[in-house]
Formats: sequence, C-alpha cells, structure tokens
Amino acid sequence: MRPAIPADPVPNPGIIFDTLLAHQRSAVLRTAIELDLFRAVGEGPADAATLAARCSTSQRGMRILCDFLTIIGLLAKQDGVYSHTPTSALFLDPRSPASLHSMARFMGLAEMTSSYDRLTEIVRSGRTVLPGTGSVEPDNPMWVDFAHSMAPMMAPMTGPLGRIVLQGRTGPMRVLDIAAGHGLFGIEIAKQNPEAHIVALDWERVLEVAYANACVAGVGERFERLPGSAFDVDYGGPYDAVLLTNFLHHFDVPVCLDLLKKVRAALKPGGVSATLEFVPNEDRVSPPMAAGFSLTMLVTTAAGDAYTFRQLAAMHQEAGFRQIEAHPVPNSPHTVVTGIAE
Amino acid sequence: MRPAIPADPVPNPGIIFDTLLAHQRSAVLRTAIELDLFRAVGEGPADAATLAARCSTSQRGMRILCDFLTIIGLLAKQDGVYSHTPTSALFLDPRSPASLHSMARFMGLAEMTSSYDRLTEIVRSGRTVLPGTGSVEPDNPMWVDFAHSMAPMMAPMTGPLGRIVLQGRTGPMRVLDIAAGHGLFGIEIAKQNPEAHIVALDWERVLEVAYANACVAGVGERFERLPGSAFDVDYGGPYDAVLLTNFLHHFDVPVCLDLLKKVRAALKPGGVSATLEFVPNEDRVSPPMAAGFSLTMLVTTAAGDAYTFRQLAAMHQEAGFRQIEAHPVPNSPHTVVTGIAE
Repeated sequence: MRPAIPADPVPNPGIIFDTLLAHQRSAVLRTAIELDLFRAVGEGPADAATLAARCSTSQRGMRILCDFLTIIGLLAKQDGVYSHTPTSALFLDPRSPASLHSMARFMGLAEMTSSYDRLTEIVRSGRTVLPGTGSVEPDNPMWVDFAHSMAPMMAPMTGPLGRIVLQGRTGPMRVLDIAAGHGLFGIEIAKQNPEAHIVALDWERVLEVAYANACVAGVGERFERLPGSAFDVDYGGPYDAVLLTNFLHHFDVPVCLDLLKKVRAALKPGGVSATLEFVPNEDRVSPPMAAGFSLTMLVTTAAGDAYTFRQLAAMHQEAGFRQIEAHPVPNSPHTVVTGIAE
Repeated sequence: MRPAIPADPVPNPGIIFDTLLAHQRSAVLRTAIELDLFRAVGEGPADAATLAARCSTSQRGMRILCDFLTIIGLLAKQDGVYSHTPTSALFLDPRSPASLHSMARFMGLAEMTSSYDRLTEIVRSGRTVLPGTGSVEPDNPMWVDFAHSMAPMMAPMTGPLGRIVLQGRTGPMRVLDIAAGHGLFGIEIAKQNPEAHIVALDWERVLEVAYANACVAGVGERFERLPGSAFDVDYGGPYDAVLLTNFLHHFDVPVCLDLLKKVRAALKPGGVSATLEFVPNEDRVSPPMAAGFSLTMLVTTAAGDAYTFRQLAAMHQEAGFRQIEAHPVPNSPHTVVTGIAE
C-alpha cells in the first residue's frame, strides 16, 4: 500500500493544489474503465488516434485522458504511444486473471461517491445522509453488486484467513460465515478442509451469488444458505468457527458487542471467531488505508468505524473470548482478529 | 510541486485503490474549509471534542475528518491533539497573509467539480458539457469569483512576470493587460514602473474587482478599464507591452493565432508580449501540474489545451514575433513566454 503523505517540514502549497484536484484522478480512472480503455491498450500499444477509434471517442478527449493516466502512473507513454504499466496490465486489463476491473467499477458507482458532495453536512451531523441506516439497511441491493464486484479484491485474502482459522483444526467441522457476501471466505475453508460444512448468512439475493461461487468451486454440497439479518436470525450451531468479515466496522461499539456475544454463544467451547477488518494503529492515522477507512464509514453508516486492535480486543474480551490475537494479512490493508470462545 | 507518480516497476494494486478513493481527499479539504476548521485549529491545538465545539459539528464527524486530514498531510496529530502543519498554518489558516483559503474555496465549488461526473461523455465528444463554449462564454460570472478568489495563487507570480516584462524598459509606457481578472499583473507593472499606464481588458464586472485592487495598491489613476471581449474590442494602442495571462489555454490553435496577430498589431515595433501559461514539456506528461492542466481545459472548454513551448513558439512566430523565449516562474507550475513584435 502507498505510504501516508508525510507532513512537509517546510510549507508546500503543492500539496493543497494536489488535494483540491485529487477528485480528477478518481474521475479519470472511472472514465477509463467505463470506456474499456485498459482492454483497448491491452490489444497493443497505440497512439491516441488509434485508441480513440478502438473506444469510439474523440481524439482530443482520448489524448488528454491517456496523458493524465500516464501522469498518475496508470499508463506508460513513449513517443506518443501509450502502453500498459505493470500495474495496469495485471490489475486493470479485464483480460488479466487478477483484474480488479469489476471492483474499480463498483467503487466508482455514483451511489458510492455522490454522498461526498454532502460531506460537510455529514460531519456536522456525524452520520450518513443515505436513507435509514445507510449501507446496512435491510436488503440493500448494493451488497449484491458488492458480492459480484469485490471478490477480486478479497480473493488474495481468503487463503491466509483460511489457514489462520484452520490452524490445528482438522476433520468434520461446522463453520458459520456471517455477512458472507461473495462467499469466498467460507468457500476457501471448505476447499482447505474437505470435511468442513459451511453455513453462509446474508441477504437472500446476496446468497445466490455466494452459492453460485460455491458450486463453481465444487463445494456447493457443503454450502448451506441462512438468509436474513445477522442480528435477527437464529444461528443454529454450535459451530467450530465463525467468520465475521468486513462487518463490525458498520456498527458502533454496543452493537458490535451484542453481535460478538451472539457469535460466542453459537460457538463450541474452544471454537474460533475470525474477524477480518481494517485495523488502524492506536494513533488512528496509520497505516493510511486502514485508518482512512473510517471516512467511508462516516459517509455510509450511522455509527460505524475502523476499530483499533485495542478496541476490538476489549469487545472480544467482554463478549467472552480469550486468546485474542491480531494477524495482519500480508500485502493487504486488512487484519484478521481471532478469539477463542470460553 | 509534487512530482508525478512514477509507474511502479512491479505491479502495485495500492495505486488503484488510492486513485479510486482520491476524490475523498478533495471532499475532505473542501469540507474542512467550509467548516472553517483551519481557523479553529489556529486558535490553538485541540482534541476532536474541542474542535467539534469550535466548528459546531458532531464529535464523530470531526474526529474522522481531522484524522483523514492528518493522513493526507494537512494537519498534525499527537496524543489525540490536532495542530497545524507548516503547510496548513501558512496556506490554509485564513488569518495567514499567504492563505490560499479563498482559492481553495473557489476550486472546490460545485460548478468547478460537478462536470467530472460526466467525464466519460466529455471524452467521447471531446468537449465540455457546460453550456455554449463553457468557461469562456461571454460575461460568465465565474470570472468575477475567479478575480476575487485566485489572487492569492497568482500574487507570487506577479513580481517575476513584472521583472521579465520591464527588463530594460523604463520611463513612460503603455501596457495592455488582456483578461486582466484580479488585475494583479498590470498593477505590479504600475508599481514597478511609476510611469506605466495600464489598460485592463475583461468583462465589465470583473474589471470592478481589478480596479478596486488597483486603487488599494495606489495605482488607480494609471489604471484604465477597457470592458469587453478580447476578440471583439479595439485594443487602441500602440502599446509597449501586452500581458496575456492564463488566457490562450482556453482556445484552439487557430483562435490563439488570430489573437496573437491582433496583439502584435497593437504593439509598437520592439514591444513585448508576455504570456503566462501552464507549459508542459514536449512529452505532454510532465511536469505533472502543467501537463495535468489539459484535463481542466477538456472539461471546461470546447477546444482549449495546455500548449507546449514548441506549440506556443510556432504560434508566436506565425503571428509575427521574434526572440520567443520561455521563462519558468520559480516555485510555480507556470511559465512566462515572451515575444518581441517585429
């Protein structure tokens, strides 16, 4: 991940212009994806006129778009010919198996970004301007999009999370995957342990995406669907492991605590809870991506936050967990926090 | 100015997240200015609760806002207490004489930024989606705002431009300041040469701002107003110098050429034309701020651009200028291009 911009020791107005114009970067990347430019560049290095023809745009617009993408490091330019950088080839060309194309499209959707036009109002009130509880309204259709789109971002984290959860656990086991989304975390457990049975909990339409992914991965027969709200449905159980991925950050501490108590009650003694989260350091301003995630929660939820390990550990402890540990996921802004049910 | 982000030699998904979320940076700075946060921080280092009280916001919103500003280098944080960085103290606190506060407010206005939501359409068509010719529509009221707001950004450039224009020129002289805006460039000439008479050309309401600035600077008696379009009004003359600051980039090459011919015709033989511009290198992708300015012209004009020195020199030559020279303005993204009328 990119390091934080350090506070310049001498006054530098450049950072102010850079910040005021930063929105241009997001717009340019979103437009390049909408025009399928990274696929067009992948067809072979080309000048602006050729790329304009491939993407059915004006030449003036394409030249200025490609120059800007070069300035921000997402294309290369040599003698007027544009080509992929290593990053754009691997992560933005839709033909790359590691492409983050769909995720980038999701993150650029107007419903994800338009609230920032009202950020002043949000800071004043301290909560989202989205209807109701924001992104965690029951059956919010954005989570179907999320399940479809964010899998490429989460895929590299499934292996590490699976190994952390399964450490020393073999043989038949039941695993509850709360807010399963794309389902990839439970699916990974099922793949690593052929005797694991997964119960995936999410909104019904989201579970359709997860179940399809499970079938493609060959674990559909061990993938059970439990539709509804994590706060309302009976979890069943008892479980050997509960996955709680990218979920706690949507809620305030008392709500998280209630949920963790419900999770603990559904676990066998000695069972493990595994929470995947953006976990900032105790200073709350580093590392930049995990710490900056609080802003997304301010804008999209009523009371969510990126919690520090100290906060998460305190919640787990109060909910009846012991051996609470943080496992940073390599090359990612995420951390897995595990606790053992007493 | 901040250097361009170099294309990473190894694939790095971090830059993609950073770019997709870059719009958050602009929104956070705009909101901090709207809440007058930098003034509140200037009243003394304080925690989030205190700053929330000073700015009448929620504590949750203020904490997350200040943490994000710290992450992007525009505040400092120590033990939960926020304070100015050298940059925010000098350039963002409204009480600082060098404050860019008004400029930042102008650049964050919705009319300046909302077109980026339609960037895909703009790249397809190759021109602004603003009505008519965009920012250069006759009497566009944004230029009154501009004259009020952008003076702090331009002020450090007036001295260098004045010295370049006056080099070897003393005694009585007549100077035409085309698209005068805030008027600061002509005013600086009048200050450096007490025998200079300035004719400032701009829309009538913009000239009111410039004339007020001239009176405050004590040169109002040598500051003549010529209201109208630079393309339509009779320049009068002949002049010893013509200033053409931040103007050519709004138009295409044939229009720039016509204008430069009109400028040359208004100059005495040996008179100087001084153009202040964002001038990218011939690769058009460096330096980042000058090169990136083409995007602003794509979004706000029908056919404008940031021209390279080679392009500007060719236009000047064809318009009848000789000794065409580029003078980069130190510590700024701007360049002064001069030409001598034949």
